[in-house]
Amino acid sequence: MDKLRVGIAGLGTVGSGVVKLLQKNKDIIAKRCGKEIEITAVSAKNKNKDRGLNLDGVKWVDSPAKIASMSDVDVVVELIGGETTAKQLCEETVVNKKHLVSANKALISKCGMRLSKLAANNGVQVSFEPAVAGGIPVLKAIREGLAGNKITSVMGILNGTCNYILTTMEKTGREFEDVLKEAQDLGYAEADPSFDVEGIDTAHKLAILSSLAFNCKLDLDSLYVEGIEHITALDIKYADELGYNIKLLGITKEVENGIEQRVHPVLVGKDLPIAQVDGAFNAVVIEGDAIGKLVLEGPGAGEMATASAVVADIVDIARGSFCYPFNDCNAEFSDIPLIPMDKVSTSYYMRIPVIDKPGVLSKITKIFGEENISIESVLQKAADPNNPVDLILTTHETSEISVKQAVEKLEELDVVLNKPNIIRKL
Amino acid sequence: MDKLRVGIAGLGTVGSGVVKLLQKNKDIIAKRCGKEIEITAVSAKNKNKDRGLNLDGVKWVDSPAKIASMSDVDVVVELIGGETTAKQLCEETVVNKKHLVSANKALISKCGMRLSKLAANNGVQVSFEPAVAGGIPVLKAIREGLAGNKITSVMGILNGTCNYILTTMEKTGREFEDVLKEAQDLGYAEADPSFDVEGIDTAHKLAILSSLAFNCKLDLDSLYVEGIEHITALDIKYADELGYNIKLLGITKEVENGIEQRVHPVLVGKDLPIAQVDGAFNAVVIEGDAIGKLVLEGPGAGEMATASAVVADIVDIARGSFCYPFNDCNAEFSDIPLIPMDKVSTSYYMRIPVIDKPGVLSKITKIFGEENISIESVLQKAADPNNPVDLILTTHETSEISVKQAVEKLEELDVVLNKPNIIRKL
Repeated sequence: MDKLRVGIAGLGTVGSGVVKLLQKNKDIIAKRCGKEIEITAVSAKNKNKDRGLNLDGVKWVDSPAKIASMSDVDVVVELIGGETTAKQLCEETVVNKKHLVSANKALISKCGMRLSKLAANNGVQVSFEPAVAGGIPVLKAIREGLAGNKITSVMGILNGTCNYILTTMEKTGREFEDVLKEAQDLGYAEADPSFDVEGIDTAHKLAILSSLAFNCKLDLDSLYVEGIEHITALDIKYADELGYNIKLLGITKEVENGIEQRVHPVLVGKDLPIAQVDGAFNAVVIEGDAIGKLVLEGPGAGEMATASAVVADIVDIARGSFCYPFNDCNAEFSDIPLIPMDKVSTSYYMRIPVIDKPGVLSKITKIFGEENISIESVLQKAADPNNPVDLILTTHETSEISVKQAVEKLEELDVVLNKPNIIRKL
Repeated sequence: MDKLRVGIAGLGTVGSGVVKLLQKNKDIIAKRCGKEIEITAVSAKNKNKDRGLNLDGVKWVDSPAKIASMSDVDVVVELIGGETTAKQLCEETVVNKKHLVSANKALISKCGMRLSKLAANNGVQVSFEPAVAGGIPVLKAIREGLAGNKITSVMGILNGTCNYILTTMEKTGREFEDVLKEAQDLGYAEADPSFDVEGIDTAHKLAILSSLAFNCKLDLDSLYVEGIEHITALDIKYADELGYNIKLLGITKEVENGIEQRVHPVLVGKDLPIAQVDGAFNAVVIEGDAIGKLVLEGPGAGEMATASAVVADIVDIARGSFCYPFNDCNAEFSDIPLIPMDKVSTSYYMRIPVIDKPGVLSKITKIFGEENISIESVLQKAADPNNPVDLILTTHETSEISVKQAVEKLEELDVVLNKPNIIRKL
């Protein structure tokens, strides 16, 4: 039986998972692709660390970049992360006419097209299923399963840490800081959680999904990103009363003049499948002109789930299956513009802390009238006698810029005691 | 740009959808696969029927089998259904070294491996994504997205007609016959609904999924099939009170001594994603040793959704992507046995119509004790003063054979007025 020889750079959680999975399921994988997949080389920072792996017969390479030039490696799996050594390794891999599998969303969301072009010029594949939504084969679904569709939107819960925090806040009524601390203690959140809770990780994944779906350029600077730090237990409670759960979503869709790309918390109606996705799970909803709606739900992170996506990419290479990484045979992005956030239209939830006295509602609604914002519902809540009254408004679809202007005016009113908290609705 | 030339046999709902989709999205599909996909020939029963299709420049072929030998056809799409003409067409297609895409679940669930072997011998592909779960790329998910996993179970809502009927019964409280009639009037159910409501359609799809997942043989005769005709409005009401929805599921999983394959109604806990799948939608839950659980949900039928799956298979062929149809490079099934239903263990819901008098429960529970069936919950319901009292029991996991024997004994009791209605639980 033919062999495909794999070199793995990085033996952290995912790298170790890949070694285990390729060893454990060696025989069934070989039967499925008609080729044996053999790990010939690995590289990691610390050779002496006990990872519980059997690496007999596998070459240990001290410098990851060296794997890119080894004669007994056909595929390099880049799992070292970051954007310096990893970038060099990825580029050298394809230039040396070896296939590349990478789980590096930060790198792919910036240099994905450059790598694709290099790979095309060198007749090799660049794959990055593990970079988005962990074990869920979502890139495959867009590129292949829905290849006949004009995609109209992709949105999803793409960060398990945020979803764990929001779900726990929802179930326990506790505040963000408190739940984040617990998540850190349990190892579900990093010591520096900003990458996750500020939405940056979701943004990287969304940029990749959007470029795949719409052939628009990778441009993280134009992508709107807002995290979950400003979501309070009160917001979750009010959203619940109104029939919504709060989720951090990455949303990209084609609108009249271009492509929206935005990451922010969203009130999602409880009857939608995505509202029910709990804990560290991810879910992606893809809409296309032929399929209608396709929902994929599964583990978005974790040793073996992400290893599952890495191995799937390796198997595709072993089978000789071929896809253009960004779904374009010329390895070019189109010049379809990305829509700036101010031009986005959606509906809104607003929690406005106000003095509880007559005439307040009229002052506030007057501003909404001036900005041409149509109110969908109003709730007035005295949450706690020591706190101001919360006025909860939801709006019909309106433009982001109108809401921004309305909020500026609201903040100037003497009856508005604190900055209103604004959360978009689906 | 290179061309891939497609001949379509059958211009019913799906065939017409494929023509429309390939024409509508011609340019983006070409960009995605680096090849133009051109329809060169079509065949259908009635040439003069107005299908609203533009077939300029497409050859009309009166006999579908002729498409298999046309020199300007690279791929034959078989959408004629049935098992006689279709079988001949499919075999001739691959023998003539043309790729085959088929939506014919009845045919594939019987002759799928024979076609795969023929195709392998002739160096062409056999694809059948549209045969299972309509637009949902579930075969791709199992064969490719989860290629690194040992699959442990696959289950799903695979028939939109049954799901529509059960969902409508649940929402309206109406009886099966009544809702079926309405579904027929609305065109959601066939004039002869037996293929759907008796579970046969689900069985065909499950057989294909099971053979893909476990490499077990296609053997419809060994697959347990039970439809939804015996589900009453009362069962749906009681299930609801107990926290369940009733769904027709196809279930296949690896157990100690082989593979279970069964189609029957199931009480599904309302908190599971699959319980929330409404109307004509399909959903499939795949479990694997690395991924854990992956859920896919989308339209299981319909003109454009099924066309989406057909076009995806054509695009894979255009790209030169390759998979072994039944996930085995030798085109062989393993000899892993299929477990007969009597050997299956699961838990149960039973509605037992009884006389409302002292001592009844004791007589009934005595039988359960004799059969070593552990009772989980008991509900006694007087649904209607003119009807007998319903005794609702749920059990812990027990064997099918014990339940069968218990039911036989129950039917002999004078206090049991009618045949108990048995529904399995998840």
